[in-house]
Amino acid sequence: MKFLCLQENLNKGLNQVSRIATSKSSLPILENVLLKTEGGRLKMITTDLEAVIIQWVGGKVEKEGIITLPCRLFTEYVSSVPNNKIELISENDTDLSILTDEYEATIKGQSAEEFPIIPEIKENKFTTINAKELSDALSEVVYAAAINDSRPVLSGVLFFFDNKELKLVATDSYRLAEKKLKLKNEINDSKKIIIPAKITAEIQRILADIEESVDIFIGESQILFHSKDIDIIARLIDGNFPDYEKIIPDQHSTKANIDRHKFIKIVKAASLFARESGNSIKINLSPKGKVVVTANTSQLGDNTSQTEAEVTGTDGEISFNARYLLDVLNNLKGPSVSLEVSGKLKPGVIRQEGKPDYLHIIMPLNA
Amino acid sequence: MKFLCLQENLNKGLNQVSRIATSKSSLPILENVLLKTEGGRLKMITTDLEAVIIQWVGGKVEKEGIITLPCRLFTEYVSSVPNNKIELISENDTDLSILTDEYEATIKGQSAEEFPIIPEIKENKFTTINAKELSDALSEVVYAAAINDSRPVLSGVLFFFDNKELKLVATDSYRLAEKKLKLKNEINDSKKIIIPAKITAEIQRILADIEESVDIFIGESQILFHSKDIDIIARLIDGNFPDYEKIIPDQHSTKANIDRHKFIKIVKAASLFARESGNSIKINLSPKGKVVVTANTSQLGDNTSQTEAEVTGTDGEISFNARYLLDVLNNLKGPSVSLEVSGKLKPGVIRQEGKPDYLHIIMPLNA
Repeated sequence: MKFLCLQENLNKGLNQVSRIATSKSSLPILENVLLKTEGGRLKMITTDLEAVIIQWVGGKVEKEGIITLPCRLFTEYVSSVPNNKIELISENDTDLSILTDEYEATIKGQSAEEFPIIPEIKENKFTTINAKELSDALSEVVYAAAINDSRPVLSGVLFFFDNKELKLVATDSYRLAEKKLKLKNEINDSKKIIIPAKITAEIQRILADIEESVDIFIGESQILFHSKDIDIIARLIDGNFPDYEKIIPDQHSTKANIDRHKFIKIVKAASLFARESGNSIKINLSPKGKVVVTANTSQLGDNTSQTEAEVTGTDGEISFNARYLLDVLNNLKGPSVSLEVSGKLKPGVIRQEGKPDYLHIIMPLNA
Repeated sequence: MKFLCLQENLNKGLNQVSRIATSKSSLPILENVLLKTEGGRLKMITTDLEAVIIQWVGGKVEKEGIITLPCRLFTEYVSSVPNNKIELISENDTDLSILTDEYEATIKGQSAEEFPIIPEIKENKFTTINAKELSDALSEVVYAAAINDSRPVLSGVLFFFDNKELKLVATDSYRLAEKKLKLKNEINDSKKIIIPAKITAEIQRILADIEESVDIFIGESQILFHSKDIDIIARLIDGNFPDYEKIIPDQHSTKANIDRHKFIKIVKAASLFARESGNSIKINLSPKGKVVVTANTSQLGDNTSQTEAEVTGTDGEISFNARYLLDVLNNLKGPSVSLEVSGKLKPGVIRQEGKPDYLHIIMPLNA
């Protein structure tokens, strides 16, 4: 292999692929990145067997080649050399030389034959979505998925393509986030798939930097997000996502419009006192125009914080896990949110002013 | 107690004292901060039995009082309330109320009688030093002390007051840093004390923010740094600091003046490859005007990086632990450093161009 490019481009590409390759794995080859010249560019591939990231780097191929290298060392080394021309040279499949003006290094690699086979699913394009919009939508949903996978479907994010819209849903059974996205390319079809939340978070991060659209291909057990310079393949979680729609309250007795930043501040203050009581904080909505957050623990002390809000309906009270409330408040972007409650034992609903496409539900705690 | 002040001032003060109070201790009272009204201000004290930090906060004392509170909760809570007037009220010695416009909290405390007795050493002022200058000087020395204390004196920083100057020295026996500071207040005396490096790092951090001078008082087994708003008391390490002056090489065969930032870059690049060989990197100084850094490991690969330098003398070669070299290069501030070597087995010396008051020695590795 002989490939020439700018340090900046190689560095940027390695930052994309390195995130899923660097963890210690029982299969050492998974710590490597595969480098392959292809179509006049350098193709870099990493995988953790759950996801595959394929990144193309522009440059000049002077001699074709293929090799795998320890991804972390290669990434750190490339980021440590000056931003200038960089030359990758390999005469065999066991080492790669990296040359710049004043730096030269040789990194020992492994033959690409050891690397897992990357699935091909570039048939039957399913739809095309604006990358930035999908990324923004995912950021409002993905954190609500379950962290452990005692119920595998809950550790994933539901992508429900339904004719004109894509519904993104995540829930860990204590809270649920749903975001609807209009599809510009109507699909005349309906399809539900579940993508592991950890990979979805990577997809969200990667798509945030992509200006164009991404093409989506759906295979038997995998999904591909394809754009000009990067492909992400994720395995799908098998199973049925819970029928969540029936838990969405269809009415409420109290509704408050609250400044999001002020709400975060008073919940944070209370959460300091809630640490030793399972993060339980109590929220009172008063039609006099106030939201009052209270935490009370026998060991630490107590706290009451309040802020003004536009409250309609009757007096309302509900107890939440402060962490869940902070999660949704921190992941939204608008200046204000609304909180709807309908009794201590009914789920609370958080919406964004003027954005009917978003919904967040938090189950109450027995205070 | 009833004390009124601005959130900003209380918050700043708590950030100073909280650093030594927050670690879990076998003595739970050490996780607390002692609050006491005194001379029209609020005095806040924390200690880990090695050091004491006393911070005064300006405000209005409406009723005298004394109490201790969990420092971490109090600090986090005060930092979470808006920057506005804040009122501290305590009717007894078991809890303190913290009131602001829209927030109120009560934190459970403990009687001040449980708190360790704070030593009084404000007799016989020893000298006065500009706080910022002392802080800057300490930052160039303190990281060179030993981390473990198998030889207690090496886990401290030597303060050698010698008539017109203060010598600050730290060594872990593999490297040594020495900084000389001119004393404006000549002391007509000579005194050697050793302060634990961990506390010295805190002293360095705190003094960096002090505009005025600090008064230094030295007691039997403690030292006090006293300024308008903050006092730091540190215990002294008993023992004799090694007679380091005899290991300072009095000549060299090669000397290189190197751009500090470029030197850091090439050492960092090499250090990536040196991880699996005890961080060993080789440095070659060539009178042709080059510094070449090399690392070579059988497992990972190898690296050679170079930069231009002004080299005088013969060809020079030495091997160092890359971490030690990066420590000193990162903690200095000037644009360039000089490296003097006198053979593979002799210590290397790092100096700062135009600053004869600083010296750093690194022992060579057998390459």
